[in-house]
Amino acid sequence: MPSVKIGIIGAGSAVFSLRLVSDLCKTPGLSGSTVTLMDIDEERLDAILTIAKKYVEEVGADLKFEKTMNLDDVIIDADFVINTAMVGGHTYLEKVRQIGEKYGYYRGIDAQEFNMVSDYYTFSNYNQLKYFVDIARKIEKLSPKAWYLQAANPIFEGTTLVTRTVPIKAVGFCHGHYGVMEIVEKLGLEEEKVDWQVAGVNHGIWLNRFRYNGGNAYPLLDKWIEEKSKDWKPENPFNDQLSPAAIDMYRFYGVMPIGDTVRNSSWRYHRDLETKKKWYGEPWGGADSEIGWKWYQDTLGKVTEITKKVAKFIKENPSVRLSDLGSVLGKDLSEKQFVLEVEKILDPERKSGEQHIPFIDALLNDNKARFVVNIPNKGIIHGIDDDVVVEVPALVDKNGIHPEKIEPPLPDRVVKYYLRPRIMRMEMALEAFLTGDIRIIKELLYRDPRTKSDEQVEKVIEEILALPENEEMRKHYLKR
Amino acid sequence: MPSVKIGIIGAGSAVFSLRLVSDLCKTPGLSGSTVTLMDIDEERLDAILTIAKKYVEEVGADLKFEKTMNLDDVIIDADFVINTAMVGGHTYLEKVRQIGEKYGYYRGIDAQEFNMVSDYYTFSNYNQLKYFVDIARKIEKLSPKAWYLQAANPIFEGTTLVTRTVPIKAVGFCHGHYGVMEIVEKLGLEEEKVDWQVAGVNHGIWLNRFRYNGGNAYPLLDKWIEEKSKDWKPENPFNDQLSPAAIDMYRFYGVMPIGDTVRNSSWRYHRDLETKKKWYGEPWGGADSEIGWKWYQDTLGKVTEITKKVAKFIKENPSVRLSDLGSVLGKDLSEKQFVLEVEKILDPERKSGEQHIPFIDALLNDNKARFVVNIPNKGIIHGIDDDVVVEVPALVDKNGIHPEKIEPPLPDRVVKYYLRPRIMRMEMALEAFLTGDIRIIKELLYRDPRTKSDEQVEKVIEEILALPENEEMRKHYLKR
Repeated sequence: MPSVKIGIIGAGSAVFSLRLVSDLCKTPGLSGSTVTLMDIDEERLDAILTIAKKYVEEVGADLKFEKTMNLDDVIIDADFVINTAMVGGHTYLEKVRQIGEKYGYYRGIDAQEFNMVSDYYTFSNYNQLKYFVDIARKIEKLSPKAWYLQAANPIFEGTTLVTRTVPIKAVGFCHGHYGVMEIVEKLGLEEEKVDWQVAGVNHGIWLNRFRYNGGNAYPLLDKWIEEKSKDWKPENPFNDQLSPAAIDMYRFYGVMPIGDTVRNSSWRYHRDLETKKKWYGEPWGGADSEIGWKWYQDTLGKVTEITKKVAKFIKENPSVRLSDLGSVLGKDLSEKQFVLEVEKILDPERKSGEQHIPFIDALLNDNKARFVVNIPNKGIIHGIDDDVVVEVPALVDKNGIHPEKIEPPLPDRVVKYYLRPRIMRMEMALEAFLTGDIRIIKELLYRDPRTKSDEQVEKVIEEILALPENEEMRKHYLKR
Repeated sequence: MPSVKIGIIGAGSAVFSLRLVSDLCKTPGLSGSTVTLMDIDEERLDAILTIAKKYVEEVGADLKFEKTMNLDDVIIDADFVINTAMVGGHTYLEKVRQIGEKYGYYRGIDAQEFNMVSDYYTFSNYNQLKYFVDIARKIEKLSPKAWYLQAANPIFEGTTLVTRTVPIKAVGFCHGHYGVMEIVEKLGLEEEKVDWQVAGVNHGIWLNRFRYNGGNAYPLLDKWIEEKSKDWKPENPFNDQLSPAAIDMYRFYGVMPIGDTVRNSSWRYHRDLETKKKWYGEPWGGADSEIGWKWYQDTLGKVTEITKKVAKFIKENPSVRLSDLGSVLGKDLSEKQFVLEVEKILDPERKSGEQHIPFIDALLNDNKARFVVNIPNKGIIHGIDDDVVVEVPALVDKNGIHPEKIEPPLPDRVVKYYLRPRIMRMEMALEAFLTGDIRIIKELLYRDPRTKSDEQVEKVIEEILALPENEEMRKHYLKR
């Protein structure tokens, strides 16, 4: 078995890192690997390292850890570099959102038609896109054979940017396609008898094939919609796969939007909080309303706090077992989301659902498996340029990534009325980033339904560029 | 010489018909042709016929005329069928515009990003699109070898609709490309030394090549912009080729918008009358403001009145010569637009500038010439589907239409940020028309920056469909 070096950039993100570490421990073919955890927040980095080591020790896995706050270190000698970092973090996102809302841009200027996900900035996130390219350039220089796995948003803009500009092996991963399983479960279908396929772009994928027992499964969904959709209520702000918005989009486009595609609808579903509640359910109005997103940020805050608490407890009680922590930390871990997460991590049989480690296993140990990958289109989806990164299923084995034929093809409406306008904004984001031509961002906002005057556009851009974090962005766009 | 039968549908449109008739008289190779004038307005039809016959008699040309109010008649035995009719006329356009404005859609619901031209309806003009298909079907049945020449707006939607659905020879013609000559004249260049090329879609063409004396001519334009553009003032609402809007679009896209492309900008230039004046000049704010369009409608009204006056005068004074009419009708004909028009028609050397007759001459008599044609893309412009009708230069001879290689290619910004969104709305218009799925028109309006609620969309559509003229459209979309 090849011992492999895996670097995780942004490892301070607890849930993601511990999922990957636990998946590694449950992948015999990757035993003996070295994981380099990298983050600029040392406190969070240490906490993850403590928990990860405890976990490995407890499950008796053979995994070595390294820790660094330096980008070169995490890349040198790496075979796989997984990036999940968000430059500036949520603090920056909220600063930019507030400036946008001050000038009439509800939910901020980066909220755009078909890109409403609240941490999927594509225009005011110069630093994040720059970081993607910096990482890719360093891989090209320091570990040219390494794979770059894009896990950080915006995965669509990020993976397209890297694959167009840096000649390294790169692929993007998300987990939106699990929305299909939500539907399968809700309809009470036996998973192994379901034949599904999704295609589109990240946070813009559609269920082009949905068969059950050899027949079309959409009538089963229609029946559920007919009989039960009126009683639907979200369990949390992200629980929107069968919301009125998803069903309305399904009716228009002819196939179901999957995962975050449901969030990425048009302004018709997002005009204001009341409209969001109508389409994404009470009380939150979906993940991307002011209430829904706050719920998420509070959750993240709790995770960070608990991670630190658990790490501190382990340090003070080296012999404690992770499995006993529930009784120790009691209420903190009682929230349903945590309980499920911890259960999954501690369950030796169940993997996290993240694709990164199984992908590495498939490539290195030829453990063929189906993934949903973000790779350049090159003809996979009709009517989309070759160099646009699409999100499609693929078989992965030792010979690489083998995208599936999209069958049946995506409906023309999805390609022409949804993907193409979404792709246009990706192209605008990348051209603005690559050329520093501020007029592209202005042109985007001139076309924005929230824009009433040129002056509004000038002011909101000026104030975002004036942020202390955006010195480099300022120079890039204002050439001063 | 082949005597040829040419049908003109909507021949009551005086300027267009008389231009074609005069061009025919100045085309020796088409001597002996028969022109069938068709219109549903008999009074206007008779007026045109009277003037046309007088003209032919006066210039001693060999042209025979037929008159009909029946569509089959104008098509049977025709070699060329030219359609310039506007079903419902301006009365219908204004009714629909007023309903739109009643519900908050300034300039009507058909005014859309990159399609602001005030008589270029694409969503509420079911009758006009239906008429295009009816004509094409009749050609297919009655004169399958005939060419269908699309001159009626919307030329883009119309020619794409016909070429996709009816297997006949069809081509669209406009005259927007003459905007290039306006630039050449304004820069004081010698026309024969200019090498130009335009490409795009109808009312969406761009000057991709502009050379003078073997060198790039754009620096000459930049110089004019630098030195003289600030003094620019429109002579009439349509005189916008070198307006602030044209220059601003040039700066962003890198090549000049030509002809009606300047009108077809984004809402940034069309938010309200004041904005239109800023970008298209005082006093009108361009052809598509409430004032500019009124100017045009008044002009049309005068033309119709004068046409009837002239026809009546000819009938009462059979021996009068057209060239003497100036003194007779005095003031009416004094307006500069008319004087130029009449001069051109009466000048045996000068053709009208319409492409239809020279096109017929090139095909039939191999008088090779360069035209700007609307034909299916089939790879001519990169990044555009093959079955989208594009407007490009082509050499025409007895073997047909030979589109030029677009060199240099259109800038990516034009293709990706201008043509693709415009094409998306064409696709929506055609799919709505062909399927009768009202949700497409609703989806278009949900995305419209003037839309604030679903209710607004429901009401405006309902009232437009309720118009007496729209009984067939109602059945088509509401299935009742």
